[in-house]
Amino acid sequence: MDRMIVPAVAASGETGVLLTDLYELTMLQAYHARGMNATAVFEFFVRALPPERNFLIAAGLAQVVEYLGNLRFEADELEWLARCGRFSPGFVDSLAGLRFTGDVDAMPEGTAFFTDEPILRIEAPLREAQLVESRVINLLHFQTLVASKAARVVLAAGGKHLVDFGLRRAHGAEAGLLSARAAWLAGFSGTATLEAARRFGIPAYGTMAHSYVQAHRDEAQAFDHFALAQSGEVHLLIDTYDTERAARTVVELAPGLAARGAPVRGVRIDSGDLAEHARRVRAILDAGGLRDTTIFASGNLDEHRIAALEAVRAPIDGYGVGTRMNTSSDAPYLDCAYKLQEYAGEPRRKRSEGKATWPGRKQVFRRYDTRGAIAADVVTIAQDGGAFGEPLLVPFMRGGEAIEPRLSLAEGRDHAARQLAKLPEPLRGLAPAAAFVPEIAPELRALATRLDATH
Amino acid sequence: MDRMIVPAVAASGETGVLLTDLYELTMLQAYHARGMNATAVFEFFVRALPPERNFLIAAGLAQVVEYLGNLRFEADELEWLARCGRFSPGFVDSLAGLRFTGDVDAMPEGTAFFTDEPILRIEAPLREAQLVESRVINLLHFQTLVASKAARVVLAAGGKHLVDFGLRRAHGAEAGLLSARAAWLAGFSGTATLEAARRFGIPAYGTMAHSYVQAHRDEAQAFDHFALAQSGEVHLLIDTYDTERAARTVVELAPGLAARGAPVRGVRIDSGDLAEHARRVRAILDAGGLRDTTIFASGNLDEHRIAALEAVRAPIDGYGVGTRMNTSSDAPYLDCAYKLQEYAGEPRRKRSEGKATWPGRKQVFRRYDTRGAIAADVVTIAQDGGAFGEPLLVPFMRGGEAIEPRLSLAEGRDHAARQLAKLPEPLRGLAPAAAFVPEIAPELRALATRLDATH
Repeated sequence: MDRMIVPAVAASGETGVLLTDLYELTMLQAYHARGMNATAVFEFFVRALPPERNFLIAAGLAQVVEYLGNLRFEADELEWLARCGRFSPGFVDSLAGLRFTGDVDAMPEGTAFFTDEPILRIEAPLREAQLVESRVINLLHFQTLVASKAARVVLAAGGKHLVDFGLRRAHGAEAGLLSARAAWLAGFSGTATLEAARRFGIPAYGTMAHSYVQAHRDEAQAFDHFALAQSGEVHLLIDTYDTERAARTVVELAPGLAARGAPVRGVRIDSGDLAEHARRVRAILDAGGLRDTTIFASGNLDEHRIAALEAVRAPIDGYGVGTRMNTSSDAPYLDCAYKLQEYAGEPRRKRSEGKATWPGRKQVFRRYDTRGAIAADVVTIAQDGGAFGEPLLVPFMRGGEAIEPRLSLAEGRDHAARQLAKLPEPLRGLAPAAAFVPEIAPELRALATRLDATH
Repeated sequence: MDRMIVPAVAASGETGVLLTDLYELTMLQAYHARGMNATAVFEFFVRALPPERNFLIAAGLAQVVEYLGNLRFEADELEWLARCGRFSPGFVDSLAGLRFTGDVDAMPEGTAFFTDEPILRIEAPLREAQLVESRVINLLHFQTLVASKAARVVLAAGGKHLVDFGLRRAHGAEAGLLSARAAWLAGFSGTATLEAARRFGIPAYGTMAHSYVQAHRDEAQAFDHFALAQSGEVHLLIDTYDTERAARTVVELAPGLAARGAPVRGVRIDSGDLAEHARRVRAILDAGGLRDTTIFASGNLDEHRIAALEAVRAPIDGYGVGTRMNTSSDAPYLDCAYKLQEYAGEPRRKRSEGKATWPGRKQVFRRYDTRGAIAADVVTIAQDGGAFGEPLLVPFMRGGEAIEPRLSLAEGRDHAARQLAKLPEPLRGLAPAAAFVPEIAPELRALATRLDATH
């Protein structure tokens, strides 16, 4: 193996400050050389929604606040930078004392949002606000991506039990953990990933793998041994060889297992025509007196497949959803950006073709209809006050310190559930609906026009 | 924020042993209860290639070997498991001494491979081989996914400079780092991600962001300040407002900057019609005496867009490729599995509908044609010896210890380049070619038939 290998699990020294692009540091070096460090305002927003997303769910803010609060260069990181040949000693020295001292305003995790709406605003000395760009995007983008996909699964499953199964095909360890978190935020019931359960307090669920059955003489022996060894609930995987035959085996074994203190709580089907297998298995279990034994389905599921199973009233009590949710496979990235909107008190605007931004420090106001559903969003200049409705961005950090906790993960999950309930009905469906487009306030349009005239 | 938040960067205590699914531990508990721990053989393979992949490139093995070598439960992890209410004290105690003591045979990183070919075989006591399933898949799947996508970009770019730009939209920190590694393995020239450069010894490249230009009075001031502050090469981003106007600004500034020791090495274009802008910018630079100043392009690039730019001979010297490569956006996951193939000396076979596996401990042999191109692969029983050609799986661990290093990352990169050169010509194109299907040896088919008859 090559000498450069270090544990893949730990992404950086202590704080992840080098989880950044080289250009952030070349820019900082130039700012340092000129003493430029006035207050900058950056905002994170999504430029366009993927075709199959009628809304997005904000997520990842907790990790951003934590990252900003811990930001610092460790000695070994500074030494490496000094050896790169790109940075002056004076500049590297200046990084030693760098901390995040700015303000963060953001939409609480779980908030539904739309294109062109900033979900996070950082106001800080220019160098701090610039340095954190790469990791702030990395954290907000991914959890928002997964929470938005998972919310569609939640809406499709109509309240049924949903478990994240996605660690193995998530894009690395952090993706596995943070997608479990994002799915839980969006309304999943739990995760199969133990480290996510431990770290975030998410309920853990699991059954057995096909390999367990294969390692035994036959399924009856495998089921018997497995059930008797568990301290928790017993769930058996029944599709290793012949699903219906295995269901009959469960019926035969169940009374004896129950008598020995190991009642079979559920069975899992992972292959074939899930609706048809579930119907046959349900009939076998019911006829065998196992009406309370649940059927759990998994295998390449997503919101569309679950909706189809629900539409035919397949007798399935819960779903394991992995790869397609954790990778947001139909839309594995969002067209998002973290852009400078104001520097030294002056609004700024990027005008690159197809990538122009709305300038200035902004706020999003939301109005509701008489039944409580979201009726309109207005994006406007932050100083305008609350005349337009409910302000969605609220303070999370002041002077580099996290302020009064707004939402725990559990509260964020409740918030997300309330947000889903407030979505206009067409946006709750899986089919692409007419886009919900926030109104750009006349004041903001006027500011953009004024700035365009100055260059 | 909620109490469960810990740094998102570090994925687990020390070794990532809880980066696993709950079911691995419920199975281990059952094995422990019965004293089952004979030798098991598991193999990792890909069942089917995505439509736009004519081959895959094996990657991630170095991290797997490292993970297995470090595998152990830390005290806090055992305490958490004991508190879960699912596991007996005796079982949790048994985990304290668990280490990986098995053998690993695998295709070296950078090897081209196809469906149904095991790229990794683990032979170890059952509990060890089962416990590691989730993380082994997680590591091999992701880097193989990205290396395979990046190899297509490398083939499309015809030797041009390619830089990984993908940290910000990679799925978390580890995805950012490991995708930089996988892209480098596949032939990229470098990465923008500093931590990946530091950790894996990959060259780092970078220019500046639009925000840098926006923070200044005008582009001329921004370019001037930036260039003079750099110790390394100077690259300027020219599409913040008007690309051609900025190119003329570069021409005006370049002589003075060169005189002051800051020659402009290159410019970057990140938006609009890249071919058309590159042509105009090239003409402006050439007319201004900057024939050696390179043009670098970025912005939602992938192999198809690069092939199109190359096809029209756009005067572009290098490409920054991010999101679409790092997320493998057209195919964000592979249909891969890690399956039990033998236990206690007996071959095993999963027969779930649509997911049947080839049983037994296997080897892949490769034959070449007279020009050195890959002619045929044969998947067969490992004990058969080398009569079929070159054996692709070679030893990497014995008795839990990494053995004689086979390939450093740099050597893996060379190996990948040689493998790409040996691909049959149709497989090197971007269009889907007739599938390269390995031959399943008659002995292996006979074994599968025999096993099917026993259940």
